[in-house]
Parts: sequence; C-alpha cells; structure tokens
Amino acid sequence: MLPKIGKYPFKAEAFRCNMLGYLPYQQMGNYMLDAADMHANERDFGMNYLMPRNLAWVLSRFSIEFTSMPHPCEPFTIETWVESTMRLFTSRNFRVSVGDRVCGYGRSVWAMIDTATRQPANILAVRDGEMASWTDPTVECPIDPPAKFRFTPNQRLVRTIETRFSDADINGHINSMRYIEHVLNLFTPDWHREHFVRRLDVSYMAESHCGDPLNFYLEESDGAIGVRVTKNAAGTPDEADACRCRILV
Amino acid sequence: MLPKIGKYPFKAEAFRCNMLGYLPYQQMGNYMLDAADMHANERDFGMNYLMPRNLAWVLSRFSIEFTSMPHPCEPFTIETWVESTMRLFTSRNFRVSVGDRVCGYGRSVWAMIDTATRQPANILAVRDGEMASWTDPTVECPIDPPAKFRFTPNQRLVRTIETRFSDADINGHINSMRYIEHVLNLFTPDWHREHFVRRLDVSYMAESHCGDPLNFYLEESDGAIGVRVTKNAAGTPDEADACRCRILV
Repeated sequence: MLPKIGKYPFKAEAFRCNMLGYLPYQQMGNYMLDAADMHANERDFGMNYLMPRNLAWVLSRFSIEFTSMPHPCEPFTIETWVESTMRLFTSRNFRVSVGDRVCGYGRSVWAMIDTATRQPANILAVRDGEMASWTDPTVECPIDPPAKFRFTPNQRLVRTIETRFSDADINGHINSMRYIEHVLNLFTPDWHREHFVRRLDVSYMAESHCGDPLNFYLEESDGAIGVRVTKNAAGTPDEADACRCRILV
Repeated sequence: MLPKIGKYPFKAEAFRCNMLGYLPYQQMGNYMLDAADMHANERDFGMNYLMPRNLAWVLSRFSIEFTSMPHPCEPFTIETWVESTMRLFTSRNFRVSVGDRVCGYGRSVWAMIDTATRQPANILAVRDGEMASWTDPTVECPIDPPAKFRFTPNQRLVRTIETRFSDADINGHINSMRYIEHVLNLFTPDWHREHFVRRLDVSYMAESHCGDPLNFYLEESDGAIGVRVTKNAAGTPDEADACRCRILV
C-alpha cells in the first residue's frame, strides 16, 4: 500500500528560471500541480480515473509561501498529501524542499465537477468515498490558510491583455498558472529585484477561455497587494471575475 | 567513459500541454535545451565548466521537425549528441522518442562567447579542444539542415508586444523558446487546430532584453510562413532583427 504522502523529485530547469536566478512561482506551481496529478493518479482518484467518468478536478484556491526558490539546475522535491476531504471540496497541501531544507509550502482547495454539466459533483461518491481514506490531517503545513485581499473601489485598472493560444490548458481554459504569470508580469524586473514575493493567494472564480480579454485591477493596503483579474470587456455587463490574488512581499 | 550520445527521460506534464492535447514546440524546446545542458555538463563542456571561466553557449540556430508530439502525461526520451565542432560553431542534434517510436528530430547550432566582452570565443581552445572528442558525425539525423525563409518587402507587421518579466531568461535576455511561443501565438486556436506545425527553423540574430518591444512581421510564400521578429520601435533606426523563423505546416 502506498503511503498517504507522496514525494516527487524535480529539477529547476535552467531555461525555466527567471532573470533573477530562481524558479518563478508559475513554474513552481506547474511542478506542484504535476505532483498533485501523480499523487492522485497513483491512488486512483486522479484524472486517469475521473476523465472516463466525465469528472474532473477544478482548482479553487491556491496559496504558496516560500522563503526561497530553487536556483537553476537545483534538484528539489515536492511532497503532497490530502489534508481533508468533504462532499464538495478537498484540500491538498504541499511541502517543497531543496535537500533537507524546506523552502516553501502550499495549500490548495479543489472541487470536482461533472464535465458534461459543469456542475459540482460529490467527491465522497467516487469509489464509495475511498478518497477519504487517503486523507492525512496529521502532517504539518505551517502556513496560514488561504486568505483573500479585501478590494475597495480604490482598485485601479492597470492592464488589459488579450489571451492567446499558449495561455490555454488542455481544457481550453486559461491555465491556472498563467494567471499567476500575468499577475507577476504587472511588476517590472526592478520591482522583482527589490521584492521577493513570499506569499501568493489565488482564488479561482470562473473559467476564462482562449481569446477572452483579461483585465487586471491593482490595489494596495495593509502591506498587501491585491490583483483582481476579470474577463471580457472592462466596464461592460459581461465583465466577470476570473480570479483574485493577494500578494505579500 | 560516457557514451557520446546522451539519453534523458522526460514527461509531457499535463499542465504544460496545449488545448489541442499535445506538448507545444516551446515546451519541447525547453526540454531539448535541458537535455543539451545535462549532456554538456556531464561531459565537462557545459555551463558549469564555462561560467566560472566567463564563457557561455549562445544558441544561434534551432530547427525542429516532428510528426507528432507527446500527449499529456506521456513519457518520452530526448537523445542528443554533437555532430560537429569547429572553431566558432558547434552543431548538436536531437532525437525525440515516445517508447520505441521516434516522433521528431532537432538540429541546433551554438556559438561560444566571452561573457565579459560578448565577443565570440574559440570553442577548440576550451580544454585543449577536448570537446571535439565527443563529436559523433555517424548518428543519423534525417531532417534537412537549418533553413531560412526568404523575406521580401511584402512582409507585413502583424503584432507588437512589450516584453515582460517572465519573458527573460537567467541572463536577462528574452528566452529563446519565448520567441517561439510568441510566434506561434500569432495564430489562432482554429488555425492551430487545422495546421500541425511540422517544422520550425529559427535563426537567432541579436539578443533582446526584458522591456524591449518586439515586432512580428509575417509573410507567406512557396508553402512556407516566415516570421521576422525585430526589437525596438518599428520603423525607427533602432529597429534590429532579433530572430527570423520559417514555419512549415
């Protein structure tokens, strides 16, 4: 029987590292999602099991907090485990280490949907709730729960982009890590040189599709930066929240 | 003693695959560069050896030709070897396989530069020309040599973008695979659905930096598509070629 926690080796490929010499959050996030995918598939509640049954995992919250990031060519490991499983949501945590040194943690919340109706599905109905048996609430994840930035009318529209082919994932939706990339791209290299993003909280609210324009609203308060990402033309009735981020530096 | 050819296992991570369900060229290219990096480092002519000596490899040409691309979660291998080594250039080839089936090949040409002066360095002067001993001209690479598109005044400016933080690599230059991503993003998802890019030839001409605007000029002739990428403001004396691509579908 497999352990409840899975541990996967990765390497910070040099050509995925940024100009400041470390793996950026959107790349680390991709590796974390990959680890989650392997962990779930090995335990038969991953996409391989769900897809033929018209079910899919949808990322709802993603919070990451790092003290440092792996450097070019540096090997690292991602451990991941399920912290809790309820009817409509499951939470999965991550621990990222370079050698014996933990450099960051992550928390994620997932819903399950019926891919035909796009409606929420009952997680506990899959394989008679077997997924709950993989849940391990005892492993420590010493970072705060997912948090939100409290937006006010002071938020200002700072950028609108048109999404392109490479922004979309295998479902045709804007890749969840691409939002993070576009959000971090709101800031200049000089800003990044002076500010290491130590924590990022993302709430995913609605799927957007390749071709949808995305609008980025920025606000700062209480030492945090909030970025609200909406889809469709700004200021029109079609405009809707795609995701909301809180950045701590 | 290591073999002249190196073979490295990879996996088409689901979250790096595109909406058409395969690994896109810019992602495959990143894995190929990673394989090149490992191959060179293991044989002591990689960045690990060169960097402390103020030397670096610079990609000059990159040609890839695939009949199909790995699908989400599919494991694949990249084999890479040095085909020829001369004073100012070395050529390195690639063979990519899913299981026993070869799905594509690549050719690349590299120069070595002195990172202090940015001038070309003599490849054969490194470790008394030891790199030549790793050269294997006998392994077959059955795709055409790197080719160029012949641009005419009919080329038309189709897009200008501002480069951002995530476009730059560890040297602060626009990542060589990012050019490919931006070039493929000139085409809509519908175009990609109808056209599988079977070959891509890129000539890298000058480095551009994060913040430089990039202009994309498109032209079609003789069944090929040419994309010329220039940096700096279009139509000004500062405009200069960053790279030129030829696309075959």
